Amino acid sequence: MSERIYTGKLTEAMINEEVLLKGWVQKRRDLGGLIFIDLRDKSGVVQVVFNPDKSQEALEIAERIRSEYVVEVQGTVVKRDESTVNPNMKTGTIEVFAASVTILNKSKTPPFAIQDETDVSEDIRLKYRYLDLRRNALQETFKLRHQTTQIIRNFLNDNEFLEMETPILTKSTPEGARDYLVPSRVHPGEFYALPQSPQLFKQLIMMSGFEKYYQIARCFRDEDLRADRQPEFTQIDIETSFLTSDEIMEMTERMMQQVVKEVKGIDMELPLQRMPYDEAMDRFGSDKPDTRFGLELIHVSDVLAGSTFKVFQGAIESGGKVALLNVKGEAANFSRKDIDKLTDFVKVYGAKGLAWVKVEGDELKGPIAKFITDDEKAGLLEKATATDGDLLLFVADKTSVVFDSLGALRLKLGKQLELIDESKFNFLWVTDWPLLEYDEELGRYFAAHHPFTSPVEEDLDKLETDPANVRANAYDLVLNGYELGGGSIRIYQKEQQDHMFKVLGFTEEEAGEQFGFLLEALEYGAPPHGGIALGLDRIIMLLAGRSNLRDTILFPKTASASDLMTNAPSEVSHAQLDELAIKLSERNTVN
Amino acid sequence: MSERIYTGKLTEAMINEEVLLKGWVQKRRDLGGLIFIDLRDKSGVVQVVFNPDKSQEALEIAERIRSEYVVEVQGTVVKRDESTVNPNMKTGTIEVFAASVTILNKSKTPPFAIQDETDVSEDIRLKYRYLDLRRNALQETFKLRHQTTQIIRNFLNDNEFLEMETPILTKSTPEGARDYLVPSRVHPGEFYALPQSPQLFKQLIMMSGFEKYYQIARCFRDEDLRADRQPEFTQIDIETSFLTSDEIMEMTERMMQQVVKEVKGIDMELPLQRMPYDEAMDRFGSDKPDTRFGLELIHVSDVLAGSTFKVFQGAIESGGKVALLNVKGEAANFSRKDIDKLTDFVKVYGAKGLAWVKVEGDELKGPIAKFITDDEKAGLLEKATATDGDLLLFVADKTSVVFDSLGALRLKLGKQLELIDESKFNFLWVTDWPLLEYDEELGRYFAAHHPFTSPVEEDLDKLETDPANVRANAYDLVLNGYELGGGSIRIYQKEQQDHMFKVLGFTEEEAGEQFGFLLEALEYGAPPHGGIALGLDRIIMLLAGRSNLRDTILFPKTASASDLMTNAPSEVSHAQLDELAIKLSERNTVN
Repeated sequence: MSERIYTGKLTEAMINEEVLLKGWVQKRRDLGGLIFIDLRDKSGVVQVVFNPDKSQEALEIAERIRSEYVVEVQGTVVKRDESTVNPNMKTGTIEVFAASVTILNKSKTPPFAIQDETDVSEDIRLKYRYLDLRRNALQETFKLRHQTTQIIRNFLNDNEFLEMETPILTKSTPEGARDYLVPSRVHPGEFYALPQSPQLFKQLIMMSGFEKYYQIARCFRDEDLRADRQPEFTQIDIETSFLTSDEIMEMTERMMQQVVKEVKGIDMELPLQRMPYDEAMDRFGSDKPDTRFGLELIHVSDVLAGSTFKVFQGAIESGGKVALLNVKGEAANFSRKDIDKLTDFVKVYGAKGLAWVKVEGDELKGPIAKFITDDEKAGLLEKATATDGDLLLFVADKTSVVFDSLGALRLKLGKQLELIDESKFNFLWVTDWPLLEYDEELGRYFAAHHPFTSPVEEDLDKLETDPANVRANAYDLVLNGYELGGGSIRIYQKEQQDHMFKVLGFTEEEAGEQFGFLLEALEYGAPPHGGIALGLDRIIMLLAGRSNLRDTILFPKTASASDLMTNAPSEVSHAQLDELAIKLSERNTVN
Repeated sequence: MSERIYTGKLTEAMINEEVLLKGWVQKRRDLGGLIFIDLRDKSGVVQVVFNPDKSQEALEIAERIRSEYVVEVQGTVVKRDESTVNPNMKTGTIEVFAASVTILNKSKTPPFAIQDETDVSEDIRLKYRYLDLRRNALQETFKLRHQTTQIIRNFLNDNEFLEMETPILTKSTPEGARDYLVPSRVHPGEFYALPQSPQLFKQLIMMSGFEKYYQIARCFRDEDLRADRQPEFTQIDIETSFLTSDEIMEMTERMMQQVVKEVKGIDMELPLQRMPYDEAMDRFGSDKPDTRFGLELIHVSDVLAGSTFKVFQGAIESGGKVALLNVKGEAANFSRKDIDKLTDFVKVYGAKGLAWVKVEGDELKGPIAKFITDDEKAGLLEKATATDGDLLLFVADKTSVVFDSLGALRLKLGKQLELIDESKFNFLWVTDWPLLEYDEELGRYFAAHHPFTSPVEEDLDKLETDPANVRANAYDLVLNGYELGGGSIRIYQKEQQDHMFKVLGFTEEEAGEQFGFLLEALEYGAPPHGGIALGLDRIIMLLAGRSNLRDTILFPKTASASDLMTNAPSEVSHAQLDELAIKLSERNTVN
């Protein structure tokens, strides 16, 4: 018997050869006493023909074959007639005449057909994930994921990085998102936590003298899930000693250049654009701007400083601002009803309303036009480079609301008006992030990234006096409006880390309890260090042109963190809980 | 300022060049108005000289430098005098004359010196793991781990495998070792389990049509720890469709050949030896025989079938056996006291005692010699090829006790008598494993590997009638007496899997509750499949020539599953437990 060959490797060069094929029956058709099956394996599909002249016995077995049966076929490669060539199939100019066939395993009728497009509900597809994964689109996504991962590894290996594994059973550090906890049997009443990221371990790896570390690392966050969040996710985790933020960014962009080149065949120009956080917010109302299209925010507080329109006046006087989007040439296409819908949309982001005017000739039309003086009009038209037929959409509010609502509205209109060139891969760095964020409810500052991020040298003296304006030595990598990840230069001096915890409101005892091992490690020759972490799942999603993060994870969980295939999480036995010295709280045991 | 260069890259070719070095101070010596420091970075060590003629300022700074300080040095490479060349140092023919030095970070005096050999307790080294990891021996181990991992990945990538990630938050399946559990916040009263291995997921990947999968996978077992166990460990996890066990073994041994070639420079001959389980037990008293030395078990029940010595008689009559080790030429070197110690040793393995005789000329001497007839003597001497000066050590007991105790004694004596060639890498396959093991206490059969292992075709009919003698389609890879891992061809037909669960005493409901998703998947065209899993940590331990598994894991846990550095596990807040709807049991809350 010949050796098995993959269907995708069959070519016209092999005509008349005997081949052994193994795979799944994609579909079966009966026609004029013959049976045709499309035989699928990991490499592709080929048509197999059962012909009574070739083998009556094989034909009889083929009659019992159904979709998704697993079969082994021995046969001869033949050229198809011109009339039966299938140009949509890679092997469409040939077929295999079966001499024999063996049914290796049967299949019930699948709950949905294994084909590229499917309209079956996602819940059904997740329950039968092993069937969904047989679809070509998902097969290709996981090949791409494999390829991308290897490109990244090869790049880092070539740059003298060591791949290292950090623990999954770690210590709970409540700062940040919620930890998943793991009760300890050996130490009753104590718990491990699953890592939200290997942050502290990778810093300790630097303190261990390894200098260049990476890991394709599993991370865990027990957060309320959104479409683009999963309880476990994978990040490309990198840390280096003795490199500057510029050097880390340069290396990272060369890595991404390699990925985009090999996976998409696109040449990416370096260096990537770098944009300070303040500029990103001002121009795009977003800290992860999609720069594939314009429609930038236009700031008009100065023009409207003396406005008699109460909404503008109020926002400006209370320290907020007025900004607008100029929807070029679209005035005629937006009815009052259309604009009402946009108003509802921005309200989700906290805006009290959406003011608007249409430019008609050199006049402004619309309900608020009457509040706008000629001077103001001239100023607005100039700033917005607005001309006949434009639609101007205003938000006047607290600065953060103006950014959030106009930033979101910009993205919505960008898609709706098809302003986005979907073939583009627009990477950019967002830099000069604020180090700290004030939580009004709790009345204290929080680390905008994490408490180990170093402040920019020249802002150090503001840590006490003007914490809100201290910039972090941090950088985020953004692609087409998605944050791929970010990094920073870390604090490496004990005194500065102590200081940071103090600014964040930790008592010395609290800092010691949670991070004592780090503080101690900083006293034994910690090198200057920094790194980056990039979300692999999201990178794959964008490279594969998909819109759902679940499509990039082999066995994903639902929005309620369930695995619909295995039915995890699930109840466990009393004996298991007893061994762990835990009990369920009342509200469960009642159920 | 020049670009930083690694100390390990400095050579005589660079003499007179200006270089910039960064790293840690390995040690400082003051001599004749000069200061010498050994500067260490990830690549190696070089001597830096501070000389008042070159720079008085640098010399003054150097006076403040202590061990493990992090410094940056600008200087000139110079050739050392013949008299000061250090042949033990890779860069020992050169040194760097410092023009300037900057202290990047200070260090307190470390609790132990960062040097190759250390006698400080392991607990201290684990608490300060980041200091221990700076030692050259551990640096080299993790470079070797990195290298090995990449060789394995490259091999598998070249063989068309896809690297894929399976979940860490999975369903608890109580069969096997204890699961680590993770309470779910979203589903109160329910738990995830950390995977003991990706076994079911990798089978489902085959059912998803991927055909060739691998993963360097983290696994978790909440077992009582031994020196060579860790709560989390890493395995090279492989699964394939349509391959036979022979093909999987051949591929695996080519992979290991590549590793041993690249890492150790050793050419390994293929195919590897294959030894049936029964032969391994008979000859070595072990299912993971160390074949680097002889001292095999010699079975003498037939010779002693009519023995009047009660111990021999009793063992044989009750269905057990008598076997011996012939400790060649060592009779004179073992006193009665020495043999008493060996007796204590075998008792740990359940043996009631250790009978012995010494061969002197053609006589047997020793307390049991008088029970041995001349015929028996002749038979023993022949079977054991025993001659003058040999020591024969007998165990007579249940078969399993004979194997366990003589197997362990063989290893002990092999080490003690230095019979083992430590330079050898003796791989072999152990095949034809029993499929099932009987648990006398529970009165039922258990899967010797796991319940998804397929029986050997020709033993299928014995599943009901003679389960103890059904062989598994399974294979273990053994190296120098360590099990590196194993695999099997899996059950891929629904009826056979149902049957197996029945043999294992599962009701249909129990099987459905735990493994319903697998049973269902088997009904939709599951391909024939099988694979293997190899323990990466142990492979690294053996390649690195280390004896402690903890040395191969970056941040390991102790025998009580604690991380002494971060102090995990630890107590968590009531708020955290409340969110998870669990409470501590009384015995903890009392504490």
